[in-house]
Formats: sequence, structure tokens, C-alpha cells
Amino acid sequence: MTKTIFEDLPTVRFEGEASENELAYRWYDADRVVSGKPLSEHLRFAVAYWHSLAMNGSDPFGAATIHRPWMAGGDPMAAAKAKADAAFDLFRVLDLPFYTFHDRDIAPEGDSLKESLANFHEMAEYLGRKMEGSKAKLLWCTANLFSHPRFMAGAATNPDPEIFAYSATTVKHCMDVTKALGGANYVLWGGREGYETLLNTDLKQEIQQLGRFLTLVVEYKHKIGFEGQILVEPKPKEPTAHQYDFDTATVYGFLKQFGLENEVRVNLEANHALLAGHTFEHEIATAASLGILGSLDINRGDPLLGWDTDQFPNDLQSMTMSMYHVIKAGGLGKGGCNFDAKVRRQSFEGEDVVAAHVGGVDLCARGFLLAAGLIEAGKYDQVVAKRYAGWQTPEAQAMLNGSMPLEAIAAKAEAEGIDPKPRSGRQEQIENLLMRSL
Amino acid sequence: MTKTIFEDLPTVRFEGEASENELAYRWYDADRVVSGKPLSEHLRFAVAYWHSLAMNGSDPFGAATIHRPWMAGGDPMAAAKAKADAAFDLFRVLDLPFYTFHDRDIAPEGDSLKESLANFHEMAEYLGRKMEGSKAKLLWCTANLFSHPRFMAGAATNPDPEIFAYSATTVKHCMDVTKALGGANYVLWGGREGYETLLNTDLKQEIQQLGRFLTLVVEYKHKIGFEGQILVEPKPKEPTAHQYDFDTATVYGFLKQFGLENEVRVNLEANHALLAGHTFEHEIATAASLGILGSLDINRGDPLLGWDTDQFPNDLQSMTMSMYHVIKAGGLGKGGCNFDAKVRRQSFEGEDVVAAHVGGVDLCARGFLLAAGLIEAGKYDQVVAKRYAGWQTPEAQAMLNGSMPLEAIAAKAEAEGIDPKPRSGRQEQIENLLMRSL
Amino acid sequence: MTKTIFEDLPTVRFEGEASENELAYRWYDADRVVSGKPLSEHLRFAVAYWHSLAMNGSDPFGAATIHRPWMAGGDPMAAAKAKADAAFDLFRVLDLPFYTFHDRDIAPEGDSLKESLANFHEMAEYLGRKMEGSKAKLLWCTANLFSHPRFMAGAATNPDPEIFAYSATTVKHCMDVTKALGGANYVLWGGREGYETLLNTDLKQEIQQLGRFLTLVVEYKHKIGFEGQILVEPKPKEPTAHQYDFDTATVYGFLKQFGLENEVRVNLEANHALLAGHTFEHEIATAASLGILGSLDINRGDPLLGWDTDQFPNDLQSMTMSMYHVIKAGGLGKGGCNFDAKVRRQSFEGEDVVAAHVGGVDLCARGFLLAAGLIEAGKYDQVVAKRYAGWQTPEAQAMLNGSMPLEAIAAKAEAEGIDPKPRSGRQEQIENLLMRSL
Amino acid sequence: MTKTIFEDLPTVRFEGEASENELAYRWYDADRVVSGKPLSEHLRFAVAYWHSLAMNGSDPFGAATIHRPWMAGGDPMAAAKAKADAAFDLFRVLDLPFYTFHDRDIAPEGDSLKESLANFHEMAEYLGRKMEGSKAKLLWCTANLFSHPRFMAGAATNPDPEIFAYSATTVKHCMDVTKALGGANYVLWGGREGYETLLNTDLKQEIQQLGRFLTLVVEYKHKIGFEGQILVEPKPKEPTAHQYDFDTATVYGFLKQFGLENEVRVNLEANHALLAGHTFEHEIATAASLGILGSLDINRGDPLLGWDTDQFPNDLQSMTMSMYHVIKAGGLGKGGCNFDAKVRRQSFEGEDVVAAHVGGVDLCARGFLLAAGLIEAGKYDQVVAKRYAGWQTPEAQAMLNGSMPLEAIAAKAEAEGIDPKPRSGRQEQIENLLMRSL
Ligand SMILES: [Co+2]
Ligand SMILES: [Co+2]
Ligand SMILES: [Co+2]
Ligand SMILES: [Co+2]
Ligand SMILES: [Co+2]
Ligand SMILES: [Co+2]
Ligand SMILES: [Co+2]
Ligand SMILES: [Co+2]
Repeated sequence: MTKTIFEDLPTVRFEGEASENELAYRWYDADRVVSGKPLSEHLRFAVAYWHSLAMNGSDPFGAATIHRPWMAGGDPMAAAKAKADAAFDLFRVLDLPFYTFHDRDIAPEGDSLKESLANFHEMAEYLGRKMEGSKAKLLWCTANLFSHPRFMAGAATNPDPEIFAYSATTVKHCMDVTKALGGANYVLWGGREGYETLLNTDLKQEIQQLGRFLTLVVEYKHKIGFEGQILVEPKPKEPTAHQYDFDTATVYGFLKQFGLENEVRVNLEANHALLAGHTFEHEIATAASLGILGSLDINRGDPLLGWDTDQFPNDLQSMTMSMYHVIKAGGLGKGGCNFDAKVRRQSFEGEDVVAAHVGGVDLCARGFLLAAGLIEAGKYDQVVAKRYAGWQTPEAQAMLNGSMPLEAIAAKAEAEGIDPKPRSGRQEQIENLLMRSL
Repeated sequence: MTKTIFEDLPTVRFEGEASENELAYRWYDADRVVSGKPLSEHLRFAVAYWHSLAMNGSDPFGAATIHRPWMAGGDPMAAAKAKADAAFDLFRVLDLPFYTFHDRDIAPEGDSLKESLANFHEMAEYLGRKMEGSKAKLLWCTANLFSHPRFMAGAATNPDPEIFAYSATTVKHCMDVTKALGGANYVLWGGREGYETLLNTDLKQEIQQLGRFLTLVVEYKHKIGFEGQILVEPKPKEPTAHQYDFDTATVYGFLKQFGLENEVRVNLEANHALLAGHTFEHEIATAASLGILGSLDINRGDPLLGWDTDQFPNDLQSMTMSMYHVIKAGGLGKGGCNFDAKVRRQSFEGEDVVAAHVGGVDLCARGFLLAAGLIEAGKYDQVVAKRYAGWQTPEAQAMLNGSMPLEAIAAKAEAEGIDPKPRSGRQEQIENLLMRSL
Repeated sequence: MTKTIFEDLPTVRFEGEASENELAYRWYDADRVVSGKPLSEHLRFAVAYWHSLAMNGSDPFGAATIHRPWMAGGDPMAAAKAKADAAFDLFRVLDLPFYTFHDRDIAPEGDSLKESLANFHEMAEYLGRKMEGSKAKLLWCTANLFSHPRFMAGAATNPDPEIFAYSATTVKHCMDVTKALGGANYVLWGGREGYETLLNTDLKQEIQQLGRFLTLVVEYKHKIGFEGQILVEPKPKEPTAHQYDFDTATVYGFLKQFGLENEVRVNLEANHALLAGHTFEHEIATAASLGILGSLDINRGDPLLGWDTDQFPNDLQSMTMSMYHVIKAGGLGKGGCNFDAKVRRQSFEGEDVVAAHVGGVDLCARGFLLAAGLIEAGKYDQVVAKRYAGWQTPEAQAMLNGSMPLEAIAAKAEAEGIDPKPRSGRQEQIENLLMRSL
Repeated sequence: MTKTIFEDLPTVRFEGEASENELAYRWYDADRVVSGKPLSEHLRFAVAYWHSLAMNGSDPFGAATIHRPWMAGGDPMAAAKAKADAAFDLFRVLDLPFYTFHDRDIAPEGDSLKESLANFHEMAEYLGRKMEGSKAKLLWCTANLFSHPRFMAGAATNPDPEIFAYSATTVKHCMDVTKALGGANYVLWGGREGYETLLNTDLKQEIQQLGRFLTLVVEYKHKIGFEGQILVEPKPKEPTAHQYDFDTATVYGFLKQFGLENEVRVNLEANHALLAGHTFEHEIATAASLGILGSLDINRGDPLLGWDTDQFPNDLQSMTMSMYHVIKAGGLGKGGCNFDAKVRRQSFEGEDVVAAHVGGVDLCARGFLLAAGLIEAGKYDQVVAKRYAGWQTPEAQAMLNGSMPLEAIAAKAEAEGIDPKPRSGRQEQIENLLMRSL
């Protein structure tokens, strides 16, 4: 076996802020205990096979720029194993506790459904053996139901029921593998579950198909005793013009429509939030308020561009407030922080992949520590709580809990001749408070 | 009583496509029967008091350009009556069957809650008397819970419970008036029910407040025996940075969260759809698929601008497909087509208001007739139906109705070794088909 | 030689609006004379090799869906010839007067610069021979300086001067070929002439490089006696985060900076206009006002999506006003209407390519005829002219032509105590006027 | 004279990062010398009369929330003086060296042109006297040619030449006042110099008018010996649908078109950059590269909203890189950092205005210090310089300086058989480098 491109790189270590080493952690001290748990258990970082092993740097106007040995052709299964070897070297270098993959990331498409499944299981077993000699655990697995041309008009939502069946079959095996490898979650991202144009689309029919598909998944989960979470990853568009899992609020409505709101949670991605017109913080706070916060795909988009750039994160303020809402929600539970982020196509060297993760890990850790500090200091929470303090009175609670009907509220207000006065929202002072804490 | 600015204008008549008269309908023949009903009953057009009587042409960088006699100061109640007189003249000129208003459009704020309510009821009675001599009926009434500074941090979602009470009181009276005037619907648009910044916001608390508020409204509706529909109007943002009633899918989830999905429907606006990243057609089709299509706010936005321009519509293709989805949904029921559209601030003359409505009415009628023709011709529906024909087989239905679990679908697919092939979506040919029909 | 996929398709003919034939022109009657010239000479339609022969339907989340015989591998030059054969069959089927190509569309990259150039010249000669038996002429040629990894950081603006040299060499040969094939224009689109991030970019240096590159091109044009136009195609972003040729106004400033404003014009694309925050009409009118309108890339984007979808056009109103501004500018001269548009990836059959062009051609023709009719009727122009009529007085002209300095204008205004009154802009009535004409 | 709302507030002092005082500077130590100059001279902060004294918190959906004593009605000139008194108290409190105003901010519109001008001159003299007892100097003055209805169709670009004359007269007097008060710059922002719809617009005529107007201004500047800079402030849209001064690149082209590129510079605003699809850094770097960087309007927009929110800045990374490009450009010269930022409408108290400026000033100072430190450390500049190092060779310079024509470059490249190889752009490592420095 030849060396992998990551094999000779030393494991990235925590060296503190003063370090001069480009490939060291400055903020991510995995074992540092915060609120009774080490950072590694709060953040549960995962490396994404998809971006870090499978991407080749091509874009709609340009060919591949990233040429890894396992992309050079030859026997596909041998290449898949070389890729897996490199993957586990990368996990070792980054020293992060989890990884994630699509079925197609780890194993090549075969000439038939049977062969594709066989390839997948063979590679899953290979990964299982690699895991024995590695600290890396599986955060989640998912099925790639969007790259192959058969999925061009959707997977579960395809006008052709045979493609629904093909997709269901694929997911069944992905779930089996996830359970076998001890995965903590199973994710569904429906890249083509939407439409290119409403003109040729039966929207209601497609949503019924999607609801059934997810129901089948949940039923199967219970049947096989998979104890992980089922997660849906919202994204509003791209590759489709409209995707049914638009954002957290849309997914929640969809889950309620099919009675799945206690069975399924969301895997939230920063870039997808942006494409839907939201901040990452908003999506996290919304999911938390609805009880469906599942896991995070860490990355960033570019607000001046209209597509999913999946860049490594670099906005400390947004990351801090994202982590603030995660902590407030009680943490990520079985979820984690998966780097759904890819190096730019000009960053085609192995070192770039490592450096990108180092920066991303440190940003998350720094944001988490700042958020935890903010909460501990209490000043910020106090400002917000004070704003809503009026709702703590019995009279206010009576309006909120339904014990006063509309006409009673009106009668009381009219009798008292209320004339409520505005209070300053102090937005700038709150912003100053946060900015000073960075 | 002096003459109103619309008093001398002749009533706009249907004159057909060949007319040379700027202020005539060319496509809107109110009495023309389509599928067993006159156009007027399909479309149920309404004139909006808000835009056509109350707007003064100011914008964030400029002062009022529209100076109507009732805006000139003096006794506010006398002005409100002069405005109402002009309104009914405008309704007579346009010869449309409905109108809509906010409480604040028809009656001035008083010095106290009591006086504000008294003003409102006095003007409601005045309108009631005007309606006796007019063909105009009330499509819907709504409460303006966003213009006054007391609402600057929200109405139902305000951190101050006294403002919740104030808002509830206002809505109670608006509902009473709606019932008294025979209104077909009651609408809630929560312009400030959202946040300026998540930093000072307790999102979960605010959504609980909003859910309670809407529940109170629904309970009161039943108590007073109001038989109209309760409608929520989605809008993603502006004036807030995020509004909780983001879009149809979000409102649906919210209704399900509070068990209101059979009680409340949506009033959809084209410009709001655009701001949420959707087409108007999408919002209509989505609401129809969820069974919550209520009514339409007719206007358009500018995709190159990021705010609610509320322009009169002028896109025939979009209007045709919007009407197509309305017809497919079984029509608008108690809802209608309300012109939530304002003349540009440079169009400050009374004639501009009339001409704008004439254009908008004609565009809707033309789109409706084209859509009805499209459906009657059947060619387009056939193309779409053919695309999903595979789902009509018993095998496909078994997957869709839940009688086959995931593992059974997989077993069958594997046994058969299925290899589904893509079929052309024929998007360009469908677009050609529609373009030719315009 | 085996049959090409277009070989058996009949030539598309003009059959008028009543035709039931999916693949017939309904509005494009090539020989119909308007204002003294046949439609074919006004519109100068071109088929784009890039989209219609070279695209394979892949997108950032999916593999190729379009599999043409010449994409199946084997000898690259034989494939290039098969592709050329199919191309000329397609030109024959569509019966349009022009085509366009990138060097890389027609000939494969070789193993060295020398071989790449040899391939290109061999294929250019092959095309030359094909043209002898065809009506298709060359509207323009351009160089693909963005797909190969060597261009990942730009071509003319690359930090590496060797890539500047490589690009210059390529363009030199493309210009030679354009001249040899009788091309009417030579186009430069700088897909990577911008930056991914300003953080690693010397913007001033890169713009100097770009200015020099364009100057070299212009000098060479004169040296070889090429009589076509040199065109730059503006696009604001994608694939880069910022492209230097952002829009027409930016290109104009750039041309002035390097003294090239009389040597170079713009090739305007509808989708690029949208990405830059403009309408196509705006870009055409702006270029016309600056004297740099060169040619058009016909397509459309989706205002709800943030990338270059390059769809076939379907908006009649926008097309009509685009053609209006073209006619007002005196027509397209040596330019034309190039279909820089691709079928959707689900439209993978040859028939889809033909149908898409038929729809696009008809839309352009219909828009052109409507615009010409609008101008002939005169009503619309009259409305606009009347708005500016005040500027025709000698006093107004004195302000405009510089004969009155600021203080003289002020002195006169103060002496007269002017108090100018607003006039209605009549926007809605103008919109009605246009809508009725569609 | 009654007390102003700012009168009792203590002057904000530099207290360092450890301060617990909400209204203290933590980073802005005005006298701290960096590169030979105190911070106050590098940054030249200005308070904007427009936002901090004249704004009342109204928005398109809501009435005024900010009620200052001088907005309460009564004699307009007395109110203007009370406002001026408050303004100078605010300047004293903030202890910043400059202020800026529109004519209409400081003096009320009169009943005639004559009275308006008289009001303006009287107030200018009043300000002149206030300045004698204050440290505040005038950074720039500008004319409000967009708020009054007469400007609804533009000022210089109005279809009515009388409005051109009215505007010219106003600007003449504003320039006189600027000179008299020792202003360092004169600014033109053409809020309505654009169009609402291209349909009723003669774009070419309007741009001619705008070019003439600016030429008149420049000629008058020289005539009266005003030694400040003439600045144009780009903005792409809002209130218009398209503004002619779209962005820096567009303004540059416009200046070249009228031969004004050595006479006029740009006043760049962060929020306007965003609306044009750019970063603030991009606009600064572009203006610097073209030699037209004039001054800065400090604020921020919200990338999720499509209008000019003019919020106080809070993004440390963007501010640092903006200041980096300012320093690289040689500083702001006669320009400065004007807070074109307003408190949110919920922040209606005087204290909010002070706190907002404190946060903004500190962010700018912190960003400036970080940028200066980055430059001094040299590591970042080195990375960028290394990327372009190849261009320093004589061979590369020959291509760049025009001494090698296209055919010579090609001949050399072909002879050498060049095969340039891509190099990693190292984007993630550069981002890490910067992130660590914050
Ligand atoms: Co993701
Ligand atoms: Co993504
Ligand atoms: Co509405
Ligand atoms: Co609206
Ligand atoms: Co193009
Ligand atoms: Co394009
Ligand atoms: Co500004
Ligand atoms: Co602004």
C-alpha cells in the first residue's frame, strides 16, 4: 500500500493562542471542561467525507483542480479503499471524534442496483475495520439521491414510482449500515426533492410522496431498533429552483402534516439558512423553540453570491451567537458539528484541507467559549429577560394561558383605559455589549 | 358637501379590446359567464382603502406627494367622512363588488383607547349607511397594529403584555364591525410580529404569544357567530427584519402548532411571495395543497428591489398561472382579489388611481380567461398528468398508501433488479405551449 | 459516417400563429420585411456551440444527463468532427443565419500548447469546409480561458505571468481563425477575470493586466485587418465572487481608463444583467447611450435564483422592450442575437434542443414585431417625448449646453422666484398602454 | 433657553478595554499616535446631523417614534436653532472632530425659494457662531434634493428644466456656505437621480443633464476658490429603482465620460456597497485603484434585507479590512469617517444616540488599529506580494508595459512550449491568519 497524502502529516495539537504553528489548534482544547463536559463532547466535530475526500474542485465553468490518487481511475473498489485509507489518516491528523458520509462517497456506483449495494456493504465493512483502529466514530450517514441522472427529477418525489422504489431501497441499506457502524444519526437531504419549474409539477402529489417516504424511514428505524436520530436537512433551492424542505419552519409544518414531529429533527446548515433568507442563529433558535434541533452542518455562504459556496466559517460574531442558542437549547445531544465545508478550488493541496479544518474548529471552539462565558456572566441574558419581565405577572399569564377570552381582555383594557408606552429596545447597546465580548 | 375628486368621473365600463378609451375595461366583462359563474363572482375584486384613500406618496427619502382634501387637516372625523365619501365615489367609478380596510384607514386615532374605539364605531356606522346606497360589499376588515409607536416592538408579540391587551381589544372591535358590515373575511397581518434583531428577542415566548392571540380570535369568531373566514397574511420581512408569518408553509406549521389549521387560512400577496423567495403561483399552489387557500392580495413587486413596492400587476404570464392554480383549487370561495397596490408617488392625481385599477382588473381578468381556456383545452393538464401516470398503477399506489413497508419495497426492487431510466421533463416545450397561449 | 441526432429532423419552417406543429416558427418569418430589412437581418440569430453541442447537463450536485455520441470517448479529434457534423445539421434544422463558438467547444485540448493549437486550427478548417455547404455564418468566436485548471486564478489577470502569455497566445489564434472564417465579431468573456476573495488579490495590478490584454487584442485586430467588432461580455460574478467586467457601466469606465472606448463594444446577456441587479432593457439602453452596444446573448435568468441559469427566454414584455431599445439604438449592426441558452438538464433529448430554439426565436421575433409596431404607432414615444418637452426651449438648452454657469442659473432662478410644480409621471397608464399592446 | 437632551450628559472619554462604563471609549484613544499621526487625524470622525438630529424613527409602515423638542412644531426657525444647540451639545458629548449636514437638516423649507435660501443662510451663520465655541469642524455639506415633492422625478435629471434650475440654485448656496464654514468637502448624493421605471425615462438625456450639473459644480468650485474636494456618493437604488451613481466603477465611468475624473472623488457608504452587490472593502479598494477615494460614510446594512438600513457598524472583520485598504491607499486625506447611521426606531432615547456612536467609533478605531498592526507585522502583505512575484521579472514587465505585441507573446510562448501549472491560492490559510488577528 502506498502512502496517503495525509499520512505523513503530524496530528494537530492544541497549542494555545500564542502558537506560531499554522497547523495547531489555538482555541480547541478538546479536553477542556466547560459546564461539566469536555469541549469535544459539547461540539462533537465531524469531518465530511463528501467535501474532504470526494470533491474535485470542479465548478459550473471549470474542470477538476483537485486530483487525489483515488480519483485517477483504475479499479473503483481499490480506489474506494485507498480513499478510505486517506480518510482515516485525515481523521487522525485532525484528531476530531466523528465523520460523516453519503453512500456514494465511500463506494462506487455499480452496473446494477445489486452491484451498487454490494459495493456499498463491502466498503461499509471496510470502514468498520478502519474504525477499530481509529478514534473516529460515525456521526451520521446519508444517501446520495441526487447525483445520478436517474434522480434528475427527484428521488422520493420523482414522477416515476420506480425511482421512489430505487431510492427507498438505497435508504434501507444506508440505515442498515448506519446501525451496523454505530452511527448516532441518519440524515436525509433531498437535493432534488423539489421542482425545476412549477409548470410541469404536481406539487401536492410530490409532497404526499415525500411524506410517505419519510414515514417509511421512521417506521423502519423502529423496526430495526436504530436508536439514533432521523434528521432532515433543510435547503431552499439549488440544485432545484424550489426544494420542499425549504427551511426549519417549513420542515416543521411538513412533519406536523404527516405526524412526524416527534420522530424527526433538523440538521441545520449555515449556508442553507442564508439561501433561505435567514441567519444560522435564527434557524437554530427556531428549531430549538419547536423542539426539533438535531445537528449542525458547519460552514458559511457568501451573502453577495446566490449559491451554496459551502465555505469554511470565519465569522466569529455569528458563530458565537449560534453557539449561544445551541447552549440555551440544552446542547446538541446526539447531533454534532459536521464540517459541510469544502476548500476553494484554488486550494487544491492536502495541506489546504487540514488548514481549513483547523481554522473552522478553532472558530467554533472560540465561539462556544465566548457564548458560554456570556451566559456565565449573565449580563446579556439579564437584558433580554428584563425586556419580557412584564409577562411574569398573573394578569399577563392569564392572557397567555388562555384563561381570559378576547372579550374579557377587551373589557378590562377598556375599563382601565390603558395607554401603553413604548420602551427603548436598546439594540445598539446590546450590540456594543456583544462586540466588546469578542 | 363639496365634490370629491372622483365624483365627476364616469363609471368604468367594459368596452372590449378595440376600445380607444383609456378608462374602460377591455377584458373584464363582469357579467361574462365562465364555467357557470360570472367573472365578477370568480374574481371578487376589492378596492383597498389603505392604498387608494390613505396613502400619501411619502417614502423613506421623501415627503408626501399625494394631497387629498381629507389629508389637509381640520377636524379628523369630518375628514374621515370626506374620505369615506370619496371612497364610495371611487368604488362607484371602478364598479367593483368589494372593498377592504384597516380600522385606522377609516377612522382617526383618538386621544385614548376609548375615543379611538368610538371613532372607529362611528365611522363603521357611517360606512354602513354608505353601503346601503352602493353596490360595494366588504371583502375583509383588518386592524392596523403596526403604524402607531406603541406597536414598534410588536402587537401580539410585544414584550409588554399591556400592548397585547391593547391589540386584543382593537381586534375584538374590528371583528364586531366586520360582522356588522357583513364582511366575508377577517384578516390579520402582523407587520411587527417578528423581530428587528434576534439579539434582544425571546423568539419562543413571542411565538407563544402569537399562537394565543390567534386562538383568542378564532374562539371569539365562534362566540359571536361570525361566519366569514379568518385569514393570516404571510410576509417574510419589512418592516421587521424577520416576521413570524414568513410564508404559506411557515404559517401552516404555525397553525398546526396551535391546532388552528382548520380554522384559519391565508391571504396571499404577490409581493410578499417575492420577498420570501417564491413566486405567487408557488404560494397559491402550496396553500391549495394544504387546504388553506383563503384570498389574494393582488399586486407585484420588483425582483430587483428588496422592499414591498406594492405595484399594480403587469405580468400576464404570472397572472395566468396564478389564476390557473386558483381555478384548480376550486376558486377563491369567500375570498377575492384585493388590490393591495398603490400608485407610484409620481402618480399623484386621482385619475392615476382609476387608471391603475383599470389596468390591474384587466390583467386579472385576462389571466383568468386565459387560464380557464387552458384548462378547457386540456392540452396542458394532459402533459402534466402524463408525467405522473406511473403512480396510477396498483404497485405504485401500494408504496404511496403505506401498505408496503420500506423493507418490502427494497426486497421487491432488489428481486426485480430495477434500473429506472430518466425521461425528458420537456420544460421548454411546456413553456412554449404556454407562451403561445398568451 | 453514422447519422447525427439532428440529421433526420426536418428544417423548421415559418407556419404562422395557427400552426399545430410543435416544431414550426409562428412569428419568425425570416423574409418578412420590416423597415426595409428582412427579419433575419434585423435579428441575426446565432446558435451557440457551447450550449447546444457541448453541454452535458451536469450541475454542481449531479452528473451528466445529456449523452451525445461525440461525448462517448474515443479519439478526441474524431469526436470533434462528429460534433461539428451534428452542429451543422442542427444549424440546418433551425435555419438560422449564424453560429458562435469557443475554441474549446470545437476542438479538444491537446497534451501541449502546440497540440492544442494544432487541434484548433484543424477543426477550424473543418468548420470552414462545413460552412461551404451551409448557410450558417460565424457571428463570433471566443476563447475559453476559464475551464482548464490553469485558469483557476484568472487568465489575463492571473498572478502568474506565464498564464497571461498562454492566454494571449490562445486569443491570438482565435482571432486568426475568426478572421479566416469571416466572423463578424470577436468576443472576450473573462469568466475568471476577477477574484474569489479580495484577501489574496492585488486588484489594481490585475486591472492593469486586463487593460493591457485588451489593448493587445485591439492592436492585433488592426494589424491583421480584422474588420469585425471586438466585444467584451459583462458579468458581475460566477464563477468568481467578483468579476471585473461587472456590467455595461463598469466596462465603459474600464474602456475609458485604457482609452479603448472607440474600439470595443459590449456583448450583453440577459442573465448577466439580472445577476448585476439590472434588467436586460437597462443594459441595452445604457450601452446605446454610451455608444458601445455591440451584440446580444439571448437567454433569461431566474430572479429567485442567484446563479446563471442561462434558460431560454420566455418573458414577452421584457423581450419587447429590449427590442424597442435595440431599434431605437439603430439596430444591432454587426452584432446579432446569440442563443446563450441551454436546455434544462432534464431535457436531454435532441428534440428538446430544437424546441427550445423554436420558442426562443419566436419570442424574439414576436417582441421585435411588437416593438416595431409600437414605434410605428408613435403613441408611446409621444408620451415619453412630452415628458421632456421642457428641455427644448432655448433657456433650458442654455443650461444644458454649458453656456450658463451655476451662478447665472441661480441668479435667474432667484430673480424669477421659480416654484416648479410636480407633474404626474403616469407610470400606470404607460404600463397599461404597453400591456394592451402585447 | 431650555436645556437640550444632550446637555447634561458627560463628555465620552477614552477609558480602555477594562472600563465598565457603557458610555466610554475602549479603543478610540484620540491622541494615540499611529504611524506619526494621532488616531483622530487618521479617522476624522463626523457626526451626521441628518441621522442624529433630524430622523424621527418613522418607516414605511410606522409613524415617528423619536420625538425631540425641536420636532414639536412652533416657529420653524426657533426649532432649527434649538436643534442646532442640541447638535453642538451632542458633538461635545461625543468629542468627535467633525460634523456633516444637508441644507434641509439645519434650516426649514420656506414658502418660496427666496425664503428657503434666507433660512439656510441665517442658520449657517448660527452654526458658524456655534462652531466658534466648539471643537467641531465641518467635514462636508450637501443639498437635500430628494425629500421635497418637487424632486419626485429627480433634481438634475428631472424632465422639467425648472427643477434643474432650482437644484442648481440650491447647490450654489450650499457651496457658498460650505466655503464660509470652512468645510473640507462638498458632497452630492443624487437620491432621485435615476428612474422609477425605464418605461417613461429618456436615460441618455438624463445622464447628459447629470453630467452638465456636475460640471457646473466643479466650475463653480474653482471660481469661488473652494479648496475642498467635490464628492459623489454612489448608491445603486432606493428611493429610485435605478440610480445613475450605481457604484464606484459606474461613477468612475461617468466622470471619465464628462472629463471630471481629476476633479471629483467618491464618498463611499458601506450600506450602499452592499445594495450594489459589493463589500465595503471592494468599493474602497476599487476607488483607491482608480485614484478617486474621497471619504467614507460609516454604517452597515443587513445582507438579508434589501433596503438601506443605515445601521451602526458592528462587523469587526469587515471594518478591519476596510481600514486596511484605506491605509494602503494613503489614508483619507481631506475625507473622514462620517456616521451615516441611525439608531433603530425602537431606540428613541437620547442615550441611544450616544451609545450607538460610542460603539461605532470604537469599532472603527479597533479595526484601524488591527489593520495598522497587520501592516506593521508584514506577514499578510508578504503572502499577497509573493502571489504576484512572477510579474517582477523583465519578461513579465515587457508584456505588461506594452513593449511586446500579442503576436510576439504568442511566438515566444509557442517556441518555449509553456505549460503553466496552478498554485494553491491558500485562501483558507489567509482567512485563518486574519481571524487569529482579531
Ligand atoms: Co449540509
Ligand atoms: Co451547503
Ligand atoms: Co397585502
Ligand atoms: Co405588500
Ligand atoms: Co453570454
Ligand atoms: Co450566462
Ligand atoms: Co451615505
Ligand atoms: Co445609506
